Formats: sequence, structure tokens, C-alpha cells
Amino acid sequence: MPEFNNAEAWHQALRQSVRLPDGFKLASTALEFMPRERPSEKPYPMRLSLIKSDKPSDSFAGVFTRNAFPGAPVLLARERIKGRFAQAFLINNKVSNVGSPSGVEDAKSLGAELATLAGIDAESVFPASTGIIGWSLPVEAMKKALPTLVSNLGKSDALDLARSIMTTDSYPKAFSVLVGQGTITGFAKGAGMIEPNMATMLVFILTDLDQPRDELDEALRAAVNVSFNRISVDSDQSTSDMCFVLSSKIKPRVAKDEFAAALEALCKELSAHVVRNGEGTAHVIRVRVSGFGSDELCRDAGKAIVNSPLVKTAIYGNDPNVGRLISSLGDFMGNKGLVLPANALTLSLCGIEVFSGGAFRIDAQTEVHLSKALSNARQDPEIQGYPQHDRYVDIEVRIANGAGFAEVLGSDLGYEYVKENADYRS
Amino acid sequence: MPEFNNAEAWHQALRQSVRLPDGFKLASTALEFMPRERPSEKPYPMRLSLIKSDKPSDSFAGVFTRNAFPGAPVLLARERIKGRFAQAFLINNKVSNVGSPSGVEDAKSLGAELATLAGIDAESVFPASTGIIGWSLPVEAMKKALPTLVSNLGKSDALDLARSIMTTDSYPKAFSVLVGQGTITGFAKGAGMIEPNMATMLVFILTDLDQPRDELDEALRAAVNVSFNRISVDSDQSTSDMCFVLSSKIKPRVAKDEFAAALEALCKELSAHVVRNGEGTAHVIRVRVSGFGSDELCRDAGKAIVNSPLVKTAIYGNDPNVGRLISSLGDFMGNKGLVLPANALTLSLCGIEVFSGGAFRIDAQTEVHLSKALSNARQDPEIQGYPQHDRYVDIEVRIANGAGFAEVLGSDLGYEYVKENADYRS
Repeated sequence: MPEFNNAEAWHQALRQSVRLPDGFKLASTALEFMPRERPSEKPYPMRLSLIKSDKPSDSFAGVFTRNAFPGAPVLLARERIKGRFAQAFLINNKVSNVGSPSGVEDAKSLGAELATLAGIDAESVFPASTGIIGWSLPVEAMKKALPTLVSNLGKSDALDLARSIMTTDSYPKAFSVLVGQGTITGFAKGAGMIEPNMATMLVFILTDLDQPRDELDEALRAAVNVSFNRISVDSDQSTSDMCFVLSSKIKPRVAKDEFAAALEALCKELSAHVVRNGEGTAHVIRVRVSGFGSDELCRDAGKAIVNSPLVKTAIYGNDPNVGRLISSLGDFMGNKGLVLPANALTLSLCGIEVFSGGAFRIDAQTEVHLSKALSNARQDPEIQGYPQHDRYVDIEVRIANGAGFAEVLGSDLGYEYVKENADYRS
Repeated sequence: MPEFNNAEAWHQALRQSVRLPDGFKLASTALEFMPRERPSEKPYPMRLSLIKSDKPSDSFAGVFTRNAFPGAPVLLARERIKGRFAQAFLINNKVSNVGSPSGVEDAKSLGAELATLAGIDAESVFPASTGIIGWSLPVEAMKKALPTLVSNLGKSDALDLARSIMTTDSYPKAFSVLVGQGTITGFAKGAGMIEPNMATMLVFILTDLDQPRDELDEALRAAVNVSFNRISVDSDQSTSDMCFVLSSKIKPRVAKDEFAAALEALCKELSAHVVRNGEGTAHVIRVRVSGFGSDELCRDAGKAIVNSPLVKTAIYGNDPNVGRLISSLGDFMGNKGLVLPANALTLSLCGIEVFSGGAFRIDAQTEVHLSKALSNARQDPEIQGYPQHDRYVDIEVRIANGAGFAEVLGSDLGYEYVKENADYRS
């Protein structure tokens, strides 16, 4: 990836590289007022966004948060995903529609109104919401904005849509992969509350490739498992996470494996940017773990490291605090009852072996070098609007002679994270 | 607890209330130089501390971290705790003696030197270290300080010792409980890296009550399980946690249950102060969970809440963000596969019911009230040296008709935590 130094350059790059698959139209609009605004809240208006395929499609799939208190859109989508057709995603930011007594009715009512205005089947509409938990949607105000939204169909490009679904996201995220004669394009919204198993993250993936529904479903689950389910910004999976894929079926089908590989690549790119644009992120941490016996254990070990506040704050401070790495890993292993020969573990940071043979291998000179490497992988979290680079803080954990592998991405933890999450309601 | 507004008042309160059990002497001294100092490091000298019973005792017990990469003192203590006698704890701060190739030999060698100087058995000495992970102990410099340390025996009082074992602790922690004709007195060091199952926390409990060894062991395990194992500052259990109890056996034995209850009360008081004096702590969060079916599940649910960065940052900002409470709980339940009727959960914050019957029960006025309650439970983390009050942010999770209960304490997460953990090596 080239380096960017302003938002316009990033937008330009997206405009040039993101292609809307055939058979879809996009729209967005902003509500005139900000519902139930308070001083503590980040002042931005609620926006409505619409993704619509020209025709009803029987080829679609979705995966949802496993949070035990899912939002109304998740409850509704879990039903509708079993239906015969999908045709539209109606998205709002600002209010997540979670824990409202009228939540499901509100979502249904908005979907029905949209369906009437757009001349489509109400059951084929998937409402999606992200934002503050605990408030009810301003349904009447949203309904008033729907005619404008529908009349805007076709006026928004992929970049507009990616921007319209953001909340506290730092920059818009949309990517395309070209496969055969068709395209797969994904949009992601996700800033805080990101952790494996879907976090306050809305992902919409569109394709024009004529893959059958069961194939979309299988490919989506596999791709999400190694991408969105292996990232963590603040270890919470939210009440509202969703990831959809919808096909307009216009372009010739490609081989199943080819489609799956392209979808996985797209999901990995989207998920990496969800971490990179996380609230207050200065470093993106990439932990590769091998040898704990299974991919799942390796993933959990990686998550233990990227979710350790002590590791996260040290990396934020460009401090090669390898003691905290070992401690977080040892904490995980102790709790899991994993016993290994003391010599089995090798730990690397930024490509340099720092622990092996049961002891630290690090002197003052190496620390200075590592501190520079950490500094080099830093982005300025105060600068918003575009990814500054695509560098990672690489941590490698290798257990000799063991099976299993996982790569996990996480973010560091610094002042800007606290500012974003303590000073503003989100 | 009365409120304190300066360190001297707190010290005075400890001097008046903490009593050293009969048959023990204390000592401390500071090394003249700071080993391997770096700019990133908080500048304080290494201190040596010594707790010695006048006679060897066959009544003692200890519990240790479950971290898979324990420090050398833990490795050594696990062996020595099986021995016949204990007589001394030799404690250093600054360097934790973890992951050093010569770690165990260094600890043994220091213990042996102390034993010679003090005229006691080397196997009855328990070295304990806390501080930076990954460095080796400056053994020669420490040995040079041992004669002074031994000659200081009896010159330190309980307050001196509590202060001497501190690292980034905000204030000294020592408490006494009077039982029968004797005393149980505990000292705790613990600031960051605190989480259930022993964190970088050193706890030394002394008594003169003539309780047998197996009883001490049983009572200690039970007390630790409901105190130190139910607190979390930053969700990492360290490589170095230890909690010892040692009896001088001078005073008549009390009933087993009486001793156990007193020890539990002492451990709860010590552990609450370990949270309250945590690095950058502004609020102490007390979560009471009931009804998940077992004490363990209730404890894990409580830990999920107090370890959620989104909950911690919201509370830091005095923001009654009940959505994040529900989300963190739902995240835990979803991952555990716990399915409950939507109406089963009642959630209270600061004594006010905020979620019940499957929906939030909170309006703008309640939010203002809750925000004030959070503000009232705040301490200023910039003010060091004494506990400002003993107030808690109370969160109650009740599942109707279910068994199990646990109380978990945690801290919030703000700028001062980041400062302490990103700007300084610890």
C-alpha cells in the first residue's frame, strides 16, 4: 500500500480502486436533527444509508454477533436471513437500537416504509443500526427522511456509502476484488467495541457473481472465521455486529474455491483496516502464534496478548516491554493449564528473537533498536481521515514441535483511546 | 473508614491500627544505586525488606501465581514451602527476577547470604521479588546491602515495611485483625498487573496464633479465593504473585473457624486496597453477580464486566453508559453459550435499576443522577500517598431464580493508567 498523507488522497485511491458490482444502487442522506443530543456526545447527525440490488436475489448470507443481548436489527435479520429473497440493506448510525422495548417493531416499521417507497418486498429489507446502545430510534424523523433516501438511489458511489455508515471510524473502508468476469466489493463500519465473533461492526459485501446461496454461506463463514473473528480492538463483541453478502447474480459463476479465496482476501483486508482505524489506535499489533496444538488455542493465545492492557500500553509507548509479553502469554497458559517444556517457546518482536531457551535474549542495544522499530510502526492517532501506512508491530510466538497456527490483529491502548471512550458517549 | 486528605494522616492511621504480631522483627534498607536505569523508567532506588520470625516455625503456608512463566522466587518458594521450617521473607522491589538465566541461583545465593548473616537456616528463607520483568538481579550490590539490612532488624515498624515493599503503589497497605489473644497482620504490595489468581502482588501475613500448618494452608486458600482471586486491575496475573502466611506460634490457638473468618476479613481488606491504590485508579468498581448457576460463573461474569475496556473508560468519564454494561455481559454470555429468558436479568448501577424485563429503564434525568453518583465515587488518581475514601461504583447483576454469587472488584481506565503504563517501564 502506498502511504497517504491526507484524506483526499485516500478517497481518491478508493474511488479508483473500488468498483460497485453490477446490479446494485447506493444512496445516503442525513437527518436534519441529532436525536437526544447531550453535551457528552460527539456531535454528528444520524445518517441513513441504503444498499439495494435492482432485483430480489435468492443468493445471500449473513453472520451475526453471539452477544447474548443482540440488538433489534440482529434479531430481525436472524429471521429474515431464512427467507427466500433479500434486496436491500437500510443502515443508520448514531443509535444502535439495542435494548429498546419497541426495537424490533421500530426496525420492521422502518423496513416496511422503505419497501413501500422503493416498491420492494418488506421481508427482503434488512435494517442495520450502529451507535449508542440503549436509546430508541427516532422512527418518525427517520421515516420523514426515507423518501429523500429512496430518491437518492444511484446518486451515491461506493466511497459515499463507506463514509455514510461510519460512526467514530477514522476513515472510510471499502475494497474490491475482481474475480472472473465479476466483482466482490465490501464495505465495513467498525471502530470501537471490536473483537472476534463480530463486533460493532457492520459489513456489507456485494457481488455480481452468480454463486449459489449455500456456497455464499459457506464461504462467508470460513472467511469471517479467519478475518473478522481474529481481530480485537477492545475485546468486546458488540450487540450489533453483522456481516452480509448479497449477489445480484448477473455475472457468470466462478469456481467455488476461487470465490472463497477472493472473499477471504477481501475480508482480511477489510478487517485489518477495521483495526487500523480503531478508536485511538497508534499501532496495529499482528500476533502470529504456532504450535499450541490447535488453531483455536493459537488464536486464543494471540488474543490474550493483544487484549492485555499492559502489553497494549507498553506498545503505545514504543516500549519493547518483553516481560509483559511473556507475562500475558504465561497468564493465558496458566489459566488454560498448558504445561510446556521451558525451552519450547521462542518469542520474537519486530522480527528479533527476544525469548528462547527459557530466558530473555535482550540487551540494552536491542531494546533501543526495538524501540525505534515500534516507533516506525506507529501512526498518529490524532490524525483522522486516512490510513497513514500499513505497517504492523509483529509478535511471533512459536512452540517447538506443536501443531496449529493463527494470526490475530489488535490495537494498542493510549490517551486517544481513553479520550474517545471516556469523554464521548458511543 | 474516615476520609483522608494527606499521606501523613493515612500513615498515622496505620501506625495506630496496625500491630506487629509477637515474635517477628522487620527491617528495610535502600540500595545506593538504581540498577540499569533508563530514561523511560520511574526513578526510585531498589529497596530490600526483611520479615523475620525470632524462631523457625513449622506453621506456614503459601499460594502462588498460576502464570506459566513464573519468576525465580516463585519457583524457589514452591520447593521451600514443602520444607519443614520457614523463618524469613527477603523482599526486593525494582526487579522481579523473571526470565533471567541465573534467576533461581541468584535468589538462592541471596537467601543463603542472608541466612549466614542472620544465623538461620538457608532453606527457611523465602526470597520475593517484584518489579521489571526480564532483568537479572544486581546480586553483588544486593549482597553488599544485606549486612545493613540484618543490622536494621527491629528498627522498622509495620508502616515502614509496608512502604518499603512498594513499587508503583500509591500508598502503603497493612492491616491487623485481633483474634483471641493474638493478632493477624497482613502487608500487601500490588499496583498494576493485578487479576485473580495472584497478580504482581506480594502479600505477607503474619500471626502469633498457634494454628497448625494444615489449618493455615486451608484457611489461606479459602480466603485468597474470595479476595485476591476476585480483583482485577488490568486482567493480567503476573509472573510473580505470592501470598504467604507465617505464624510465630506464641499465642494460644483459636478455633479454626474463628481464624479462617479473621483471615478472610483481612484478605478482603488488603485486596480492596490493592485495587484502590492501583495504577491510575479513579473509581473502584464493585460488581455483585448472582444467579448464573455457580459461584464460578458469577465470578467470571463479574470479571467480564470489570475487565471490559469500554466499561472501564465510561466509568472513568463518569458516564453511566449502561449499554456497555449490557454489551460486556452479553459478550460473556454469548461466548459461554449461556441462554436465559430475556426477562431474567436485572441490572443495577449505583443502586438504581437500569435494565429489567429485557429493556433499559433509564431516562435523561436518571442519567444525570447516575453521573453525579459516579462522580461522587471518584478519587483523584493524580493524588498519591493515601486512600481518599472507601466508596465504590456498585454494579449488581441478578439472574432470577438462579444459584451462585460472587463479588468482584476492579478499577476504571483513564489517562493516568495509560501514563503509568505507557510512559514508564514497570
